[in-house]
Amino acid sequence: MNSTPLSHDSDPALTNSRPVVRLKPKAEARAIRHGFPWIYADELVTDRRTQNLTPGTLALLEDGDRRPMGVVTVNPNSKIIGRMLDQNPDAVIDQAWLTARITRAHAMRARLYAAPYYRLVHAEADGLPGVIIDRFGDTAVIQPNAAWAEAHLDALTAALIAVTGVKNVLKNGTGRARSMEGLSDETVTLHGTIDAAIPVPMNGATYMADLIGGQKTGLFFDQRPNHAFAATLSNGARVLDLFSHVGGFGLAALAGGAQSVLAVDGSVPALALADQGAAASGFADQFTTRQGDAFAVLEALAGEGAQFDVIICDPPAFAPAKPALEAGLRAYERIARLAAPLVAPGGYLGLCSCSHAADLTAFRNACGRGIGRGGRRGQLIHTGHAGPDHPMLPQLAESGYLKALFYRLDG
Amino acid sequence: MNSTPLSHDSDPALTNSRPVVRLKPKAEARAIRHGFPWIYADELVTDRRTQNLTPGTLALLEDGDRRPMGVVTVNPNSKIIGRMLDQNPDAVIDQAWLTARITRAHAMRARLYAAPYYRLVHAEADGLPGVIIDRFGDTAVIQPNAAWAEAHLDALTAALIAVTGVKNVLKNGTGRARSMEGLSDETVTLHGTIDAAIPVPMNGATYMADLIGGQKTGLFFDQRPNHAFAATLSNGARVLDLFSHVGGFGLAALAGGAQSVLAVDGSVPALALADQGAAASGFADQFTTRQGDAFAVLEALAGEGAQFDVIICDPPAFAPAKPALEAGLRAYERIARLAAPLVAPGGYLGLCSCSHAADLTAFRNACGRGIGRGGRRGQLIHTGHAGPDHPMLPQLAESGYLKALFYRLDG
Repeated sequence: MNSTPLSHDSDPALTNSRPVVRLKPKAEARAIRHGFPWIYADELVTDRRTQNLTPGTLALLEDGDRRPMGVVTVNPNSKIIGRMLDQNPDAVIDQAWLTARITRAHAMRARLYAAPYYRLVHAEADGLPGVIIDRFGDTAVIQPNAAWAEAHLDALTAALIAVTGVKNVLKNGTGRARSMEGLSDETVTLHGTIDAAIPVPMNGATYMADLIGGQKTGLFFDQRPNHAFAATLSNGARVLDLFSHVGGFGLAALAGGAQSVLAVDGSVPALALADQGAAASGFADQFTTRQGDAFAVLEALAGEGAQFDVIICDPPAFAPAKPALEAGLRAYERIARLAAPLVAPGGYLGLCSCSHAADLTAFRNACGRGIGRGGRRGQLIHTGHAGPDHPMLPQLAESGYLKALFYRLDG
Repeated sequence: MNSTPLSHDSDPALTNSRPVVRLKPKAEARAIRHGFPWIYADELVTDRRTQNLTPGTLALLEDGDRRPMGVVTVNPNSKIIGRMLDQNPDAVIDQAWLTARITRAHAMRARLYAAPYYRLVHAEADGLPGVIIDRFGDTAVIQPNAAWAEAHLDALTAALIAVTGVKNVLKNGTGRARSMEGLSDETVTLHGTIDAAIPVPMNGATYMADLIGGQKTGLFFDQRPNHAFAATLSNGARVLDLFSHVGGFGLAALAGGAQSVLAVDGSVPALALADQGAAASGFADQFTTRQGDAFAVLEALAGEGAQFDVIICDPPAFAPAKPALEAGLRAYERIARLAAPLVAPGGYLGLCSCSHAADLTAFRNACGRGIGRGGRRGQLIHTGHAGPDHPMLPQLAESGYLKALFYRLDG
């Protein structure tokens, strides 16, 4: 089975008008045939015609022997010069095609989640390269981080509404990938109206997601299973939620029976949303916030002699890409070193990384060093990853970016 | 903090009588000081006196400059010649010491589990090298897989009873490590009586664990979180549980709402226990078994045109050690290749490995190849590991042996 069996209209007039791009004779066509979705620039014959293609152009990919391999989207400015859309070379990328992809993604989430709050489309793994769609009940947020998706945005929006019945659709055009694709930074409402923070039920708490406010904080669904694991550790506990954002770990911990939560974040709007979430969840009395730099707050808390039964650190990516790896790993080590002494004997320390560049082993080593330099010993009791609404393509499984390590620390 | 702060009686007469073993001058003492628990044979001065030590002898470890580093247990027959028991060189390894270690292990489990059915002691990670203790309510099973533990078995049993209040204690002396330690193969009741299969509540089902029957099948607690994840996929599903043992995935799937489960295993006694568990859980009508080789049964099911919404394969370790790695990975690939075609469109395939030698990447690649050669494409939606009652020492974290990969397969 070499092509995904999706419905499409074969319109020769449309498909024949596509430019053709060709793999070099020595390129590894086999991996692509087996489902690897990317074509690297050094694998493609990049003549002047190909170099002049507008980012997002749909093209017919041929192998070195001129056999058709599928429909790709081309970006001559990127190291990943081509991304496979469909291994059927005759596929028409229209609303029906987009509807089939979204239908498949929706079927998987609908089976796994009791309520429609999740990542609905996770880019390559859902067959829509560069496209992220998060769903918040009646509202969906599209991130068209690839030029082909921007070009098909009307059809994508129509397909999304047809499959899910959402009433409001927002385009969030702030992805870092967009400038490389020649796309501008813009966030607009494509359908319906979105004007207030949306309450999101997860793990027994209610989170507030502000999709259009000054901070466009939204919500990160990927940590949901790790929030749930932290909640199982938190019954009766004093919890410190570092880099709390809108209260991800803290509100779940309170739903799990935590005695109290201190949420720390640099963003005042995020902490305001966290406070609203605590109130909406009925935990206002047990929830306090402190605005500030997490490293500085940890040092201040140590000075105050504070102790917590559970501490969770969920920082932004300290090592988003390879050049930042060493500095990023030092930052992960430092946060572990500063947090570990504040964990009460027999308590828990959860350390998270969403850095693509830091793999599980490197991150675990950094955490282990930090805990040791913080004067603590312990056991690693759980390793968590992103939830199933963030699937991975098996051929790209290295891209499992989210790691959450939970340690129990001795006295 | 270089030594674990456990209570002990310092009896000079006892401690001074210990033999001394010494690291070579160039050995890496730092990792050991930081908590790495093993001393490899090529790091130790192995004079004739050391080579003649009985396996399990307690000794004082010194570094190359004759500074004391802690109490180790020595096995001159093993590549891991020494295992750290206590970084306090004066520690006395007696019932009080054992009680402190078991108390710490028990405190962690008691906080995490509603009922006392779990792995209570997980060897090195719980500070008791080579010692496994599983708890089944009033009954505990000790696996003293290291000679030092066999020599201290009475004190270990007394400490276990004192901390947990269990009424029955079984010694299971069938571990593969025992012959290397000069220990014989024997299973005996050390305390109380054990005469029937024990009902074990997990994930909403009741499992039957036969601790002393002809097969000594017991129960594997490590898969509990992966059983739970499979259950979330199984509502209304037709489920195939391959290498079912006493019904681990199958009964959890039924508790999660599965329509039907077919359990396949080579062992007739294991399937009889699975049937008993299904009856005890109220699922007898939805649960059927088939005895046979899993590979042969998969081929037969394909011949019958069978389809399942969820298939889980949880085989024994195909690659328990490095020499078996290549053959083991081929076996994992083959089981994935045979199982994938039987998964209904949009259904799930769970593939597990408990092989130390096959790391996550190697196992994932083997599974991906097998699924592809089985003619299927899909998404990796979840990567699971052993539960928190199977903690890892951060310094030995590579030993995360259990991997469970869940794929959603396209039509």
